[in-house]
Amino acid sequence: MEKKQFTVPVPVKNVQVHDSFFSDLMKVTIEKLIPYQWQALNDKIPDAAPSYCMRNFKIAAGMETGEHGGCVFQDSDLAKWIEAVAYSLIWHPDPELEQTADEAIDIVERAQLPDGYLDTYYILTGIENRWTNTKDNHEMYCAGHMLEAAVAYYLATGKRKLLDIMIRCVEHIRSVIGPEEGKKHTYPGHEVLEMALCKLYEVTGDERHLDLARYFIDERGKAPSYFVAEGDRNDRPVRPESPFNLRYYQADRPVREQEGAEGHAVRAGYLYSGMADVARLTQDDALFEACQRIWQDITRRQMYITGAIGQSAAGESFSFDYDLPNALVYGETCAAISLAFFAQRMLRLAPRGEYADVLERVLYNGTISGMSLDGTKFFYVNPLEVDPARCAHNHQFRHVKPERQKWFGCACCPPNLGRLMASLPGYLYHTNQNTVYVNLYTTNDMTASLDAGEVTLSMQTQYPWDGAVRLTVHAAPENMTLALRKPGWCRSFTVRVNGAPAEYELRDGFLYLTRAWAAEDCVELDLAMPVMVVRANPRVAEDIGKIAVQRGPVVYCLEEPDNGKNLQRVCLAADAAFTTRWEPDTLGGIVSIEADGSEWTLAGWNDDVLYSEDTVPSLTARHLRFIPYYAWANRGPAEMTVWVREKL
Amino acid sequence: MEKKQFTVPVPVKNVQVHDSFFSDLMKVTIEKLIPYQWQALNDKIPDAAPSYCMRNFKIAAGMETGEHGGCVFQDSDLAKWIEAVAYSLIWHPDPELEQTADEAIDIVERAQLPDGYLDTYYILTGIENRWTNTKDNHEMYCAGHMLEAAVAYYLATGKRKLLDIMIRCVEHIRSVIGPEEGKKHTYPGHEVLEMALCKLYEVTGDERHLDLARYFIDERGKAPSYFVAEGDRNDRPVRPESPFNLRYYQADRPVREQEGAEGHAVRAGYLYSGMADVARLTQDDALFEACQRIWQDITRRQMYITGAIGQSAAGESFSFDYDLPNALVYGETCAAISLAFFAQRMLRLAPRGEYADVLERVLYNGTISGMSLDGTKFFYVNPLEVDPARCAHNHQFRHVKPERQKWFGCACCPPNLGRLMASLPGYLYHTNQNTVYVNLYTTNDMTASLDAGEVTLSMQTQYPWDGAVRLTVHAAPENMTLALRKPGWCRSFTVRVNGAPAEYELRDGFLYLTRAWAAEDCVELDLAMPVMVVRANPRVAEDIGKIAVQRGPVVYCLEEPDNGKNLQRVCLAADAAFTTRWEPDTLGGIVSIEADGSEWTLAGWNDDVLYSEDTVPSLTARHLRFIPYYAWANRGPAEMTVWVREKL
Repeated sequence: MEKKQFTVPVPVKNVQVHDSFFSDLMKVTIEKLIPYQWQALNDKIPDAAPSYCMRNFKIAAGMETGEHGGCVFQDSDLAKWIEAVAYSLIWHPDPELEQTADEAIDIVERAQLPDGYLDTYYILTGIENRWTNTKDNHEMYCAGHMLEAAVAYYLATGKRKLLDIMIRCVEHIRSVIGPEEGKKHTYPGHEVLEMALCKLYEVTGDERHLDLARYFIDERGKAPSYFVAEGDRNDRPVRPESPFNLRYYQADRPVREQEGAEGHAVRAGYLYSGMADVARLTQDDALFEACQRIWQDITRRQMYITGAIGQSAAGESFSFDYDLPNALVYGETCAAISLAFFAQRMLRLAPRGEYADVLERVLYNGTISGMSLDGTKFFYVNPLEVDPARCAHNHQFRHVKPERQKWFGCACCPPNLGRLMASLPGYLYHTNQNTVYVNLYTTNDMTASLDAGEVTLSMQTQYPWDGAVRLTVHAAPENMTLALRKPGWCRSFTVRVNGAPAEYELRDGFLYLTRAWAAEDCVELDLAMPVMVVRANPRVAEDIGKIAVQRGPVVYCLEEPDNGKNLQRVCLAADAAFTTRWEPDTLGGIVSIEADGSEWTLAGWNDDVLYSEDTVPSLTARHLRFIPYYAWANRGPAEMTVWVREKL
Repeated sequence: MEKKQFTVPVPVKNVQVHDSFFSDLMKVTIEKLIPYQWQALNDKIPDAAPSYCMRNFKIAAGMETGEHGGCVFQDSDLAKWIEAVAYSLIWHPDPELEQTADEAIDIVERAQLPDGYLDTYYILTGIENRWTNTKDNHEMYCAGHMLEAAVAYYLATGKRKLLDIMIRCVEHIRSVIGPEEGKKHTYPGHEVLEMALCKLYEVTGDERHLDLARYFIDERGKAPSYFVAEGDRNDRPVRPESPFNLRYYQADRPVREQEGAEGHAVRAGYLYSGMADVARLTQDDALFEACQRIWQDITRRQMYITGAIGQSAAGESFSFDYDLPNALVYGETCAAISLAFFAQRMLRLAPRGEYADVLERVLYNGTISGMSLDGTKFFYVNPLEVDPARCAHNHQFRHVKPERQKWFGCACCPPNLGRLMASLPGYLYHTNQNTVYVNLYTTNDMTASLDAGEVTLSMQTQYPWDGAVRLTVHAAPENMTLALRKPGWCRSFTVRVNGAPAEYELRDGFLYLTRAWAAEDCVELDLAMPVMVVRANPRVAEDIGKIAVQRGPVVYCLEEPDNGKNLQRVCLAADAAFTTRWEPDTLGGIVSIEADGSEWTLAGWNDDVLYSEDTVPSLTARHLRFIPYYAWANRGPAEMTVWVREKL
């Protein structure tokens, strides 16, 4: 059977981003996030909960003495940091930072046991207990993240030390877990190792690495359940009525039989990413179909307009179709990041606009909302509606914070943002044979190898604030196809080449341009970017009668500093006249949106009356100012809402 | 200083209810609830969590062997049962039931320690630890409930045994706790003993009983906090950020300084009831003012339209002003019952319609919703909006049940309903000097002693289904004043005496009729009872743009068996034509309400689109049928909503 051709991302090293949006995020990442995280990993942030991460590694390496500190998965924080460093070194060489990372890797090497085992929790708390609680104790999660870091660091620096460490660690895991008799027939309690093994396979070509990933995918959820038996052995039975039931682990049935997204959203997003990788690398159409089914369930029934996923704080989990509470939401930053991973992998399997649309939605909204504009404070939970009084006084909303926090004891989100931001250039382009897919728009220079030769191009745009995109093809094979994404939100556009209307084929959300390219050909894509009024499918009870404001890929919100309090009393007509303004000095540079709206008044309502049959609603004018959702909560604790009542 | 005259409830024994509403509830109480609860207390309900209640008493009495079972406050279940039995014996003598209760009291007597101590938890688990955890371990709560039972049983039967047991128990408590040096300066972790002591004082006239109640009220919340010190001693520190902080216990400051309702709602309601009792019995105006301040906070800012209180499942607690989530609500049945207690006590302090209005609201809605029509299944949580899928699939809503449950391991609500239902006749009338206050309307016969002589009257009405009320004054002192409540919901009424328009003075929600009464004078009060469309104060963000349907005191809801699914898509114009119909054979006999409403359609919304800027809202006709809220969930798990979107 002929192997299918899938698209390949143009790697970070081949794309130089120098716009004013992504590069700001990337700059914050290297100037603030990465150094700040290194301080955090070394317990040097005043007033923040200690991480214990490097300390654990040093104790395991015999360099310090003491006990294991922090969460059972604390090792993964270093892994994410090394991965972020690796990407950043590609586009921002920094010998001092590289040396710091090298030294950290030396410590990891010393911490590793002779048999390849590497997990400071069990090394420090009792190695005899290792592999007894694969459901909860994150050995494979930590290994997965460190393996992702190892591959990234190898690709960035050419240095094999961490890669070799992790190949030995994978060999150890293979000696303990697998289909063979005498091995444990288990799989990661928190997924990530699946996609890490696929990355490793793409570097090593060693089929055993891919086989282990496929084994994890196929073994997961089989009956009788390994996790149930293990929970019973540990006197921690899996209770079906608990939020931490088998669905929490995506393990209630084999993944190929799962109809939709379920359980802990970060686990889920990592699993689905690993499934998509295995589907691609093993040419497994049935597995791709399972991915598509789950993808559709997420993006058509369980995803917020910001790209946030995981509705319920109980188990940080998916809940059920069309259940999208805006204030009670969980919407963990890491879960949104996992959706970006899944989206890119689906885009590799099939170049369809719907995958890139979600990738864009989550990159411009639900992921970067997790970080303050200065890169030093973080949200775990990303609400779409906030009243600080409720966070303070109704404990059912205590997971929702009206301000980003400095650091978390369980610090999964900040370092995850770090590695995403540092690897952003790798999301812009995919290639396949002689086609260049342009997934996202931002100012950059790119080179890539196609079957028929090298392509070099430059892109210039003010995206996401302006929809005009100018591509200059410096060099290209003559028969190259340029596939420009037509965003799902875009209703009107023009494409010109060298000033003249261009021939194109619109297919699955991409505009395919094939022509005899000449050096310095100039492609001008102009995406009309009006203010849009968006409604949710009425199956989403929470959003009935409400509208959201979006412009281009950016979802907007009302926030108290611009609009005062009582935002839930605001209403807005869908046909309001919106004015937009570029404000370079506001919130790092934004396009603001203003409109004349209304407000439910208190006329007729004394504060001594709670319910009345005599008082009719009345509205008064209220001017509204919207800012991009991702930029909220950079001006102190405040009310905020994405969805606004529609004035009919 | 002259003592103020406060109103006095006409006791249960003086009021014979024989309508078709309250008496149905009372009949269910004696035929089903009381026998069912006795079975439960004796662990004889198949498939229900065992109570262990009687077993604990029998072990403590030396009649059985074993260990303490169930909650630390399990003794209170027997107390509430005895109290319910006491009231029921007044209006429905039952020698066999009385003998069962007498035998239970004999067991209680044997369980009591020689020094008066009575709490099976510590008697069975280690008496040396008694009184070491007054914050959490419910010794005074159990004593309070048993004391309330003792007074009720004494007043009902004339038998003093339980009363004497509890006087000894109170003496023991006084020997341990109080203002004197060497005693513990603590107060009940769960209030109820305060109001129980006031009841005891009204029977014994012993000032020491009132003094102890006043001590608890005054000591509560003083700094430094006894509860904080005790928590530290027990290595269970009170954490300010936890739902179980000092506010949970209404103990963050002295009660006279508390601005509003706070913390665990049942605790709060019992405390406020005890405060009102002490304010009355000690003629303490400042304490009455504190009661009024808290009353206003509850009823004007924190009460659901059903009378439910306690918005947050975290700590089963009040949250903050105007925070009234309909689906996430807690609204414990016991909390609504405590509001009825508080309302009646405020009505004793001042005959104002607002107190009786809330009493009526909670009696016809948020309390009795806690019980199935057949008296065998119970809600702990009383939501105003339910989607069974959410209860099943979003664990943050797992406290909300779409069906009443058979019994609870922590079974506070069912026996609390039992004692409320059995004592309903005692809420109808208050008297003061020569005035008879008619608080509630239902068919009954009543006699009472006024300063100038006996009054005997009969009331006939189809209330709450019809607003026509006919009172026949069989005998009355000539200068009697009849004070008929004009319900707050009533906009139009007539009063006639012997067919002619009557003179009256409308003051604070009561119509005062004074005349030279003759035997068989007939007073006809006709309260217009149209279907009302009610709105919430727009400060309640949750209910903006929504309406509720109410008729008389009865709040209505839409339920799935009548209306199908997707009730959150329904909308209704406030000026819709409502039709009402008396349906004697539906849900125990109800007036149903129907109207032509609308529904958000899915037109233009494929199930593959979650967000769209191209699809405008469209409505289609949908016929709506409303049933009384209290009668919901008697036809299987179903969607339900009280608040409906208003079509503007």
